[in-house]
Amino acid sequence: MTSSVVRVGLLGCGNVGASLVALIAEQGDAVEARTGLRLEVARVAVRNLAKTRAVDLPDGCLTHDAADVVNDPSIDLIVEVIGGIEPARSLVLDSLKVGKPVVTANKELLANVGAELFAAADAAGVDLLFEAAVAGGIPLIRPLRESLIGERVRRVLGIVNGTTNYILTRMSEAGATYADALAEAQSLGYAERDPTADVEGFDAGAKAAIIASIAFGVNVVAGDVYHEGISGLTADDIAFAHRLGYEVKLLAVAEQNDDGRVAVRVHPAMLPKDHPLATVRESFNAIFVEGDAVGQLMFYGRGAGGMPTASAVLGDLIDAAGNLRRGTHASIGSLTRADIQPIDETRSEYYLNLEVVDRPGVLHSVSGVFAEHGVSIRSMEQEGLGDEARLVFITHDAAESAIQATLRDLDRLDVVERITSMLRVMGS
Amino acid sequence: MTSSVVRVGLLGCGNVGASLVALIAEQGDAVEARTGLRLEVARVAVRNLAKTRAVDLPDGCLTHDAADVVNDPSIDLIVEVIGGIEPARSLVLDSLKVGKPVVTANKELLANVGAELFAAADAAGVDLLFEAAVAGGIPLIRPLRESLIGERVRRVLGIVNGTTNYILTRMSEAGATYADALAEAQSLGYAERDPTADVEGFDAGAKAAIIASIAFGVNVVAGDVYHEGISGLTADDIAFAHRLGYEVKLLAVAEQNDDGRVAVRVHPAMLPKDHPLATVRESFNAIFVEGDAVGQLMFYGRGAGGMPTASAVLGDLIDAAGNLRRGTHASIGSLTRADIQPIDETRSEYYLNLEVVDRPGVLHSVSGVFAEHGVSIRSMEQEGLGDEARLVFITHDAAESAIQATLRDLDRLDVVERITSMLRVMGS
Repeated sequence: MTSSVVRVGLLGCGNVGASLVALIAEQGDAVEARTGLRLEVARVAVRNLAKTRAVDLPDGCLTHDAADVVNDPSIDLIVEVIGGIEPARSLVLDSLKVGKPVVTANKELLANVGAELFAAADAAGVDLLFEAAVAGGIPLIRPLRESLIGERVRRVLGIVNGTTNYILTRMSEAGATYADALAEAQSLGYAERDPTADVEGFDAGAKAAIIASIAFGVNVVAGDVYHEGISGLTADDIAFAHRLGYEVKLLAVAEQNDDGRVAVRVHPAMLPKDHPLATVRESFNAIFVEGDAVGQLMFYGRGAGGMPTASAVLGDLIDAAGNLRRGTHASIGSLTRADIQPIDETRSEYYLNLEVVDRPGVLHSVSGVFAEHGVSIRSMEQEGLGDEARLVFITHDAAESAIQATLRDLDRLDVVERITSMLRVMGS
Repeated sequence: MTSSVVRVGLLGCGNVGASLVALIAEQGDAVEARTGLRLEVARVAVRNLAKTRAVDLPDGCLTHDAADVVNDPSIDLIVEVIGGIEPARSLVLDSLKVGKPVVTANKELLANVGAELFAAADAAGVDLLFEAAVAGGIPLIRPLRESLIGERVRRVLGIVNGTTNYILTRMSEAGATYADALAEAQSLGYAERDPTADVEGFDAGAKAAIIASIAFGVNVVAGDVYHEGISGLTADDIAFAHRLGYEVKLLAVAEQNDDGRVAVRVHPAMLPKDHPLATVRESFNAIFVEGDAVGQLMFYGRGAGGMPTASAVLGDLIDAAGNLRRGTHASIGSLTRADIQPIDETRSEYYLNLEVVDRPGVLHSVSGVFAEHGVSIRSMEQEGLGDEARLVFITHDAAESAIQATLRDLDRLDVVERITSMLRVMGS
């Protein structure tokens, strides 16, 4: 078989871009032997031309002008690893318009204007592939798009943020406080100096939107995702979870109900210790998929890092290059806007931890509030705290609105000193 | 988009075939809405025409003659779920020759004559897809073929037999003996009346051959796979493993060395309790992949059962039908025969459990045998057993040949009463 040379234009040469260049240098011969495709990183657009780079690039391939790469007629295919919405969006649209397949690792872009880009790719008849945008090196988008295209997916639960999973692992295994675990994650480079995007669930929310879009075939955007982060979790929450047989994880949850509505949210949740997601440690990611025919699936691996992410980009790049040569392309088509279920209407089991005054009749008053809102209690534990007592409840499945009303009314009870915490319980 | 009707010929209508018919009936509309493909199970070849079937089939679609289905010009695509090598092999080859894509769930076929079939598919320019042949509903073959095509895969460790994993889970969690756990698995329908293919590792071996072929791009057949089963494992082995911090799993192992040689084997192994594979319980399967760029990946789910397997067949069917419409196909190409590393030359850590006479100097004699064969000891525990003592060793990484020589010489030592067990230790 004669090899086809595929000239790749790379937009951005940070950690992922440089890793991709290194990976192609390492694996290029093997890829050519197996596929007949000779990948050449021919032009690279960077912000800073003067910066020293750890990877070898052909002389003169660097440019400051990304549009130049997109419009260079000798470039067959574009890899976008700039990140952010603009100028990435315009560059991707321009590439598609001139008939160049695009591979991107950009979750923000997909989670905000994905539907526009999918439609543009379809109109142009070329690939837009984005395995690396969710869960780094883990093959997830391709299995969802292809292997499970005939599957009625009910729910996806994902640990899709390595930073927060690292923090939660340290809190769980070393008994660290949130602040100490965060500081440790920062010192190891797992967390940014401003950790907001990770710890408040924004990063996981963008990934949840993309997962929901692909799993359910509708357009879900980052703004549709309800999110709570982990910054309010205490060592006590984790200790109580352990005592009851659970681990605490930050979950991205995407569900499609029988009525077609889609619920997408990110929040910490208690998972039974023997749930496959509960055993995912450190900065690893995992995505748990529940489908009618296939049952339970899980995909596990490195959700970030230059080389794992570059591995996912390379898989897409080879696929897109092969499709280009064969004159075909994968298609997501035009996604209709998802009908989003408000967070109030979602259902879950709940864990509630209350500090109450220690006197007879308190449990009676407290349980009366649950009953009033139709929230059924699955288990209760009481322990003394000097003059006070602690009540720990796990409810049966209940609507979020009923729990919020219960919390509001509990807070008004004289005998309730403090609502220490509320966590959703999933995966039972 | 106008829908294309795809007329499917089904060879075999047992558990998987009937599940596929039911799944297409359930999901057909959703598939058509998302892909524009209208799947119709138009003809079905069965052994017994008189048998009552739980699924609805169009009038007159049943036939006794599989060749009739293959050669029916109105049939676009063949699904082979007969199992076994012949007549499946001839039917698949004939289908490919007349230009019909084939989807198969037949592991025996792929593990024995896969290379012949891949070459025939390539020559005919049509798809031969087989996701369901390994690990049932788990997307594994597609990620290996496509997502990881640019990855240097070093090693794959798989729990690919649900029967043995169920038995080992019962031995581990309920302290059951092998015989009791097997009887329980049989009563639940997880194990056959003659369990040999499962418990002696033949089933896992066939899957290991397919995994190795796809992961490394070379032709590995079932006969290349070394295998040991689980029928010799005792409750004591499991108890010792737990005490040392391990679980025992039946692993399919496929490795490619730097010299290009491939080692493929199936045997029980001790895995550290915090290894992702160690937490895979009951009849679930999981495949752990180690690659240079991507790091560690794991794919988890149902490895058997009608509906999970039918889900994998349906994913392939939609892909093959789409490719047929677009006039394209996926290709594995012609695989060269793998250079197989003999089991003697493979390396691992080992657990050895010996009963010895309880007198001074015994450890000195025993450790001398290890030293003589260059086997380095990582840890040793000794416990009294009345007049005897038990020595439990875990070695550092050693060659299989050195361990076999050590075992042979230990067996000749007067002070060694019995070599109770030897297990490989992996995943440290």
